[in-house]
Amino acid sequence: MSTPGTQTTFSAEDYFRTQHPPPTLEHDVEKVRAFVTRHREEGRPVVLVTSGGTTVPLERNVVRFLDNFSAGTRGATSAEYFLQAGYAVIFMHRQFSLQPFSRHFSHSTNPFLEFLEIGPSNPMSPIEPGSASEEGETVKVLPSMRKELLTVLRQYHAVQRAGTLLTLNFVTVDDYLFMLRAVAQELEPLGRRAMFYLAAAVSDFFLPTQKMSEHKIQSGKGSLQIEMDQVPKILKPLRDYWTPEGFIVSFKLETDPSLLIPKARQALERYGHKLVIGNDLYRRKFEVVFVEKDADSKDGFRETWVRLPEGKTEIEEEMIKKLVEMHAAWKEEKGRT
Amino acid sequence: MSTPGTQTTFSAEDYFRTQHPPPTLEHDVEKVRAFVTRHREEGRPVVLVTSGGTTVPLERNVVRFLDNFSAGTRGATSAEYFLQAGYAVIFMHRQFSLQPFSRHFSHSTNPFLEFLEIGPSNPMSPIEPGSASEEGETVKVLPSMRKELLTVLRQYHAVQRAGTLLTLNFVTVDDYLFMLRAVAQELEPLGRRAMFYLAAAVSDFFLPTQKMSEHKIQSGKGSLQIEMDQVPKILKPLRDYWTPEGFIVSFKLETDPSLLIPKARQALERYGHKLVIGNDLYRRKFEVVFVEKDADSKDGFRETWVRLPEGKTEIEEEMIKKLVEMHAAWKEEKGRT
Repeated sequence: MSTPGTQTTFSAEDYFRTQHPPPTLEHDVEKVRAFVTRHREEGRPVVLVTSGGTTVPLERNVVRFLDNFSAGTRGATSAEYFLQAGYAVIFMHRQFSLQPFSRHFSHSTNPFLEFLEIGPSNPMSPIEPGSASEEGETVKVLPSMRKELLTVLRQYHAVQRAGTLLTLNFVTVDDYLFMLRAVAQELEPLGRRAMFYLAAAVSDFFLPTQKMSEHKIQSGKGSLQIEMDQVPKILKPLRDYWTPEGFIVSFKLETDPSLLIPKARQALERYGHKLVIGNDLYRRKFEVVFVEKDADSKDGFRETWVRLPEGKTEIEEEMIKKLVEMHAAWKEEKGRT
Repeated sequence: MSTPGTQTTFSAEDYFRTQHPPPTLEHDVEKVRAFVTRHREEGRPVVLVTSGGTTVPLERNVVRFLDNFSAGTRGATSAEYFLQAGYAVIFMHRQFSLQPFSRHFSHSTNPFLEFLEIGPSNPMSPIEPGSASEEGETVKVLPSMRKELLTVLRQYHAVQRAGTLLTLNFVTVDDYLFMLRAVAQELEPLGRRAMFYLAAAVSDFFLPTQKMSEHKIQSGKGSLQIEMDQVPKILKPLRDYWTPEGFIVSFKLETDPSLLIPKARQALERYGHKLVIGNDLYRRKFEVVFVEKDADSKDGFRETWVRLPEGKTEIEEEMIKKLVEMHAAWKEEKGRT
């Protein structure tokens, strides 16, 4: 699928010059602009949370694609804790990945049809439009589910009323990269009040549209050979040009625990952003490691392990608490200089 | 990722000998056996509906995988119409793809938190456990949604009471192939009363475990090269050995409409099963083509277009009606010989 000798490493500039933005980008940017303007006026910090995996289509009329494992649990859960901490949240997620609030009742773990029962319409109450059926039956939430739903629904409605959550969708790695650049440029005027919490599982490789096959790749011609190019390292322009003052947090997911800290340090060296959160695929719900640069330390780095406290269920609660403190200190520091 | 010169075409036998079955297979087979036995005694026809895409993991500790585009709409919708037509349905689907009944309210098109409202607990009704909160509030279904939910919920409960739906899950193409073989072997005793409606989007290529990398593939070494082997053509042993009397329906999805009928005919020639349903990626909700062998026709084939009738919303209603007739005729034919 690729000609030997053609380019396999794109700079960010080359990438954005040669690939195509998603058709809905302008529309999304307008929503972001209005959202940022309002929260800027109200003095609220804003965090961009990215969540879920990106796809790499192998065909222009897409049937097959490369994907990255991610249900979006980390991002959706973290977004709720940022909202609780008073942030305005831009939640940029993979289509159909988990979302704040609805995540509690989604997919097959907690199918919502199981919450509902058919019961008699209440003859005492006035007739409500659309509620009555020929048989005088109506749909009700099971009593055993009401308490849990009520808790989530209260938070959900409060966030809707406050207008502190803006949701954006992506599918492909191209959608993601163009959208990240555009959102970063909109957040730039916030300076240190903007945080970037980049939890999406972004593909390291992509197939330039120029190399993509038009139709479904046919089998029957033996094995399938795919050669993909490296995705440009986007953290570099993000930190250097698009949002030099933003508080940028990236993630490293590894399956070999011995690579976690070396890879995190390498990323900080290369891109110069604030923090890498390292997680091991199998222990990521119980512990993560915050890796920062630290001029006072012997080797120039500081590692802090964050663990799920006894009696708690979501490590994101601890992670966000710590991040909010770090972000506040970073804003503070600016004030003093 | 592969050594040149190694095997790239697996026979079904080689495949099942060298690859690994999913750990839950035995457990699933027991459920299928009990389900088939009961419906066989009750004289009900049984259909296996497969639905959703399969993944091909690129790493043993999976972070990246190849996937096939499919939300599972065709399979989930068809399963409902088979249930309505009196079939017992084994619904074998990709984890998190759409399912019968819940499909009407799933994902972001119809998020269920939007159906619910917080209202006062009814002071007239007796106290129900778990329903009351400190503030005397409870969760209710929005009046405007009750009618639609009631219709679906009635069907869902009726199917649960009748026990006519058995749901199985797969993720990878390996899960799918091992599960398909096992289910086919359980359905074999039903002879012509079993139908196979193979709507899942199954990968044509896979990466043998022997060639898979143990950990997450590292970027930073230039481009990614993947070579995948062809998945064995499973329709052949399905038709020849596992269920010679089963009514087997396969699907062809193409993006180039000119390939649709030639590819469907080729599949019938090769595998000798009953029917190929051809669909074009962009028109599949409005028209499909049923391709069968026909000894009386000049070129040996018959094509019948099935189209969405005016005023209807789901082409699957027409498709299943037609299939139920064809299946009945096939059972009938056996009775006469």
